[in-house]
Amino acid sequence: MTIAIINPNASHFMTKQMQASCSNLALQNETLWFECEKSPASIEGHSDGIYAAYHLLEKVRQLENSATPPKAYVIACFDDTGLDAAREITASPVIGIGEAAMHAASFISQNFLVMTTLQRSVGILERNLDHYGLRVRCAGVAASGLPVLSLDADEKSYDIVKQAAHKMLQAKKADALVLGCGGMSHWVDALQQDLGLPVLDGVRIAISFADSFIGLKLSTSKVLGYAWPEAKTS
Amino acid sequence: MTIAIINPNASHFMTKQMQASCSNLALQNETLWFECEKSPASIEGHSDGIYAAYHLLEKVRQLENSATPPKAYVIACFDDTGLDAAREITASPVIGIGEAAMHAASFISQNFLVMTTLQRSVGILERNLDHYGLRVRCAGVAASGLPVLSLDADEKSYDIVKQAAHKMLQAKKADALVLGCGGMSHWVDALQQDLGLPVLDGVRIAISFADSFIGLKLSTSKVLGYAWPEAKTS
Amino acid sequence: MTIAIINPNASHFMTKQMQASCSNLALQNETLWFECEKSPASIEGHSDGIYAAYHLLEKVRQLENSATPPKAYVIACFDDTGLDAAREITASPVIGIGEAAMHAASFISQNFLVMTTLQRSVGILERNLDHYGLRVRCAGVAASGLPVLSLDADEKSYDIVKQAAHKMLQAKKADALVLGCGGMSHWVDALQQDLGLPVLDGVRIAISFADSFIGLKLSTSKVLGYAWPEAKTS
Amino acid sequence: MTIAIINPNASHFMTKQMQASCSNLALQNETLWFECEKSPASIEGHSDGIYAAYHLLEKVRQLENSATPPKAYVIACFDDTGLDAAREITASPVIGIGEAAMHAASFISQNFLVMTTLQRSVGILERNLDHYGLRVRCAGVAASGLPVLSLDADEKSYDIVKQAAHKMLQAKKADALVLGCGGMSHWVDALQQDLGLPVLDGVRIAISFADSFIGLKLSTSKVLGYAWPEAKTS
Amino acid sequence: MTIAIINPNASHFMTKQMQASCSNLALQNETLWFECEKSPASIEGHSDGIYAAYHLLEKVRQLENSATPPKAYVIACFDDTGLDAAREITASPVIGIGEAAMHAASFISQNFLVMTTLQRSVGILERNLDHYGLRVRCAGVAASGLPVLSLDADEKSYDIVKQAAHKMLQAKKADALVLGCGGMSHWVDALQQDLGLPVLDGVRIAISFADSFIGLKLSTSKVLGYAWPEAKTS
Amino acid sequence: MTIAIINPNASHFMTKQMQASCSNLALQNETLWFECEKSPASIEGHSDGIYAAYHLLEKVRQLENSATPPKAYVIACFDDTGLDAAREITASPVIGIGEAAMHAASFISQNFLVMTTLQRSVGILERNLDHYGLRVRCAGVAASGLPVLSLDADEKSYDIVKQAAHKMLQAKKADALVLGCGGMSHWVDALQQDLGLPVLDGVRIAISFADSFIGLKLSTSKVLGYAWPEAKTS
Repeated sequence: MTIAIINPNASHFMTKQMQASCSNLALQNETLWFECEKSPASIEGHSDGIYAAYHLLEKVRQLENSATPPKAYVIACFDDTGLDAAREITASPVIGIGEAAMHAASFISQNFLVMTTLQRSVGILERNLDHYGLRVRCAGVAASGLPVLSLDADEKSYDIVKQAAHKMLQAKKADALVLGCGGMSHWVDALQQDLGLPVLDGVRIAISFADSFIGLKLSTSKVLGYAWPEAKTS
Repeated sequence: MTIAIINPNASHFMTKQMQASCSNLALQNETLWFECEKSPASIEGHSDGIYAAYHLLEKVRQLENSATPPKAYVIACFDDTGLDAAREITASPVIGIGEAAMHAASFISQNFLVMTTLQRSVGILERNLDHYGLRVRCAGVAASGLPVLSLDADEKSYDIVKQAAHKMLQAKKADALVLGCGGMSHWVDALQQDLGLPVLDGVRIAISFADSFIGLKLSTSKVLGYAWPEAKTS
Repeated sequence: MTIAIINPNASHFMTKQMQASCSNLALQNETLWFECEKSPASIEGHSDGIYAAYHLLEKVRQLENSATPPKAYVIACFDDTGLDAAREITASPVIGIGEAAMHAASFISQNFLVMTTLQRSVGILERNLDHYGLRVRCAGVAASGLPVLSLDADEKSYDIVKQAAHKMLQAKKADALVLGCGGMSHWVDALQQDLGLPVLDGVRIAISFADSFIGLKLSTSKVLGYAWPEAKTS
Repeated sequence: MTIAIINPNASHFMTKQMQASCSNLALQNETLWFECEKSPASIEGHSDGIYAAYHLLEKVRQLENSATPPKAYVIACFDDTGLDAAREITASPVIGIGEAAMHAASFISQNFLVMTTLQRSVGILERNLDHYGLRVRCAGVAASGLPVLSLDADEKSYDIVKQAAHKMLQAKKADALVLGCGGMSHWVDALQQDLGLPVLDGVRIAISFADSFIGLKLSTSKVLGYAWPEAKTS
Repeated sequence: MTIAIINPNASHFMTKQMQASCSNLALQNETLWFECEKSPASIEGHSDGIYAAYHLLEKVRQLENSATPPKAYVIACFDDTGLDAAREITASPVIGIGEAAMHAASFISQNFLVMTTLQRSVGILERNLDHYGLRVRCAGVAASGLPVLSLDADEKSYDIVKQAAHKMLQAKKADALVLGCGGMSHWVDALQQDLGLPVLDGVRIAISFADSFIGLKLSTSKVLGYAWPEAKTS
Repeated sequence: MTIAIINPNASHFMTKQMQASCSNLALQNETLWFECEKSPASIEGHSDGIYAAYHLLEKVRQLENSATPPKAYVIACFDDTGLDAAREITASPVIGIGEAAMHAASFISQNFLVMTTLQRSVGILERNLDHYGLRVRCAGVAASGLPVLSLDADEKSYDIVKQAAHKMLQAKKADALVLGCGGMSHWVDALQQDLGLPVLDGVRIAISFADSFIGLKLSTSKVLGYAWPEAKTS
């Protein structure tokens, strides 16, 4: 039984990085990673999101039509790109890394901070928080100002993010930090040690939740909001 | 100066019908109608929405690159498909027919009812209402159960919608009716007469607002949330 | 066909100023301006508001009883003084300049800032925002500290407002500015140029929307909340 | 030391009735009752409210300028007509009967129902609930359909209200009833007995709270939102 | 007839202090003070709260079974510890000092600030505000950083609290101060004088409200949410 | 490594039943079940909740002081009794079955219905929903009217619950059912089959999440809201 993890953007480097940071997860199901080569190289804003969602849906459709469709899906972009649409075209559970991290934070903190990349993503994440209902548990969404594709492992980027997080955690009186981009997942342990409070990486959490949902036999509701798409009979 | 009206679905019939019901609008700018041939025939649910938004963005991009880009855009689907994304790729104002009708209703009623087609669209419209902030002025979103493509001019469909609207208006104590699908725009006068309260058709309203915005020289903010898409420099 | 624009306060200077800043609006209907001589000279707080609303209602009643009642009304105070009450005593649409500007801002920005005059008006505007539902789209309401009647054209006042706006736009990460008083309408172009984002003046917008509503044949609902006043039969 | 109780409408009968139903209240301060002869005979809707608020303010001003200004004010209309404006023009506490009843209900129930007169008042009371924050504790605002001036003591009116209340209490699973009009205050004991749960009459509660506030030396804040009106220096 | 005032923590000193600061209240009913010797010495956080609520319930049960059960209860901890549970086991009104102060503040201010002791209590008070609905009227909950048991009468503590309050009142543009701990009740007059706006002490207010509720014959609803506990018949 | 599952009520039968329904869960950690013998036999209302929370805290304290403290805790009452308090006295994650089920439902449905036992619990669960933020995803909380201790396996109880659920699912247009009491956990498969949509049992989900959190090394934040209890130094 497989969990399909789909990176909806086209950055092969980011896929590799997320994969690496998940290598030590003990799971009961196998994982397979997928990319969307025709998507934008990173998802920064609404229009990137629509393009990526389009290609993500194509990937899900293709996997659903394969000989052994996945038992669960993970969407590996913190914006949860195309999440609701994907749930329409499969009965398997679909978990976004953004929602996974933010729901998980609700179990271990009272007031979590989300640290994203660019300011333009803040509104998108706030809208997601409203849709999930989690705004009441969120101290705020802050942007480091670093674009997604500059979040590589060099120390300078790390320091910028760490200091921005430290400052906002104090200002907002937050008690946990949620990493607002899959491209930061390799920093989770270092940040947790440096900041002295729980740091949550949605990639690992979403995969673990997908594993859990398979074990619990929980699948997406196929009535009303996530029903299979309508046949068009004009 | 032109207002580009884009039907994000592929139904030529619906485009024609909306065009007809707008023929008597007195405007200060010219209108041009466009369709998205590769889109789904109708937009019923999240995945239809992603596909349609993708093709809508392509159309907007193409128009922006034309010799005489439009001075304003109208997205002629009540779900306001791709609205935020379109605002990123143009500086001209972009008006969705859903938001136009619901904002307009706030000026002439206290508690408007939205009548949509299928139950699966209710959640999408409620999420839009939350995003626009207008949930507090909305008595509810109700579904007639009639699919978009069956909303043609025959009397039986009209009666189903009229009776569903009448029943919900009473139950929810609403004082205005918003037509929740461009495909109902030809019924606006008949419903207004039969129901005895204001009936709002987003298509006409969005076009009139676009005309107004051009006159007021109001254009989309290009800082922060609707800034031009990022150049990708990985 | 006429749009009646009523300044609910007694400042003739402010009426003239607003009138001047609207002189270049291209409309399909005629406009007529009215003042309320017995009202307070400016509306700063709740009790000014009640007095002004009283005189505004008298003006509307008088116009309704005239030979050619207006086809639409604009209330030219950003507090939208007496708005709901006026809608009870006419079937013509009634548009407040506050609601017009804030609704319009929702179409071209994600997070608008309102700049008002005195701190005491902030709570009144926030309550309006809650009533309209638009708080979710508003980055905040800020006060420049300048009283209404000192908002004349001298450069010093302009600089105070510009700098207060600039500071708050940055702090609140807002992407548009709504001018929170009709007395600032002559600054709209200068501020837009100086601040580099859309600046919205409710006076012009409300008049343009009134023009649009007449064209759309949208009138106030006369059932339930805005029904004609009750006959008293004690 | 006096509590001034002002009926903002012109119905002498209603004043007398409220006065009678408060005759057995044990207070530490004297009460004096006032009427607004030029107000509408009853307050049903927004425009009645503006006219009544105007005359109420005149009455408060007159009392403030008297030899022995009251130590507290009660506004004896459930809409809390002119409440915020009155608080600007006196430093004494001002208590509305609507807010008093609804706040009091929060101390003894989880989910109170408000029973008002006409449907047109429902939106006004809901807006007050939002302003006070008490919507979360309110099961709903229901209208009996009986106009204010027909709420006299005859048995038929009583039965209509009792049955409407009973039906809504069941439907909304409410655990207390708030009488949404001063004109019902004489029914409080009978309804409490017939319905088997707490029934709250704002008139008595507001007067008792005013008495309490005087004893506690609590007076209206005169900074920011309720500061004394501005001197106009145009 | 008696009002039972129960301090749910074990600090005898604090009971004495609150008692002293209430000595000059003119009431129509007698007061009796009680302590919970087995409770934590102060209530700082969730687990202190559960322990204290347990012992408070025991005290209420004991009083209910006494020869002359109280006519009203006051819970003298600003967290309103055990408030809903206490209302299940008596029909007499139960008033928490936190809710009393915050509701009272709604009658005399637009935007009150709560000053509590430790940061860990902020979330608890915010949750109470949400439950009461009063978050909309609250400018914020701030912590002085002083633990409950250090709030004795020395001048240094007073200065810390006064300065923290002054700073937050300015920052949050609040127009009244609510003292967020019974242990500050002796400072109410000094703070009011030093800060120049209303300062509210829940202890006195809750007792006065309890007195008022007895006079109004308002008692806790015994249907639905506050019904008597279920008999267990397993 | 162990997951401690604590039933905060005293019903041994219910513990056995929940244990049985979890027997087939594949986990990576061991589970140990505990009961609170001095607690009420079932938790129905606020005062039951306080008593049960008290004994639950004692159990957690005892386990924390044991030679091998658990790596995670599950609180097996749908009210999430004592949840926040327990999080203060351990650094291990603590998962309530109510929150687990309702968060999980957010991943597979848009609008879940909660079916609880008695009407008195509805307010408690709604308050939890507000605290978790999940009210926006919840179609409503309905009560079957069956007390907790009558939820044994007989067919009549099952039919009552099934029919109540069916009726409410239709009325509220919900797309998933959350079982609002640990005592219903043995019905999950039957109900899922009979109702045709996902049915969620918090007991299994909370245990699986606890297992997942251990694997993810996610533990409770020990700064601010869930910090270790204060040492009392009076």
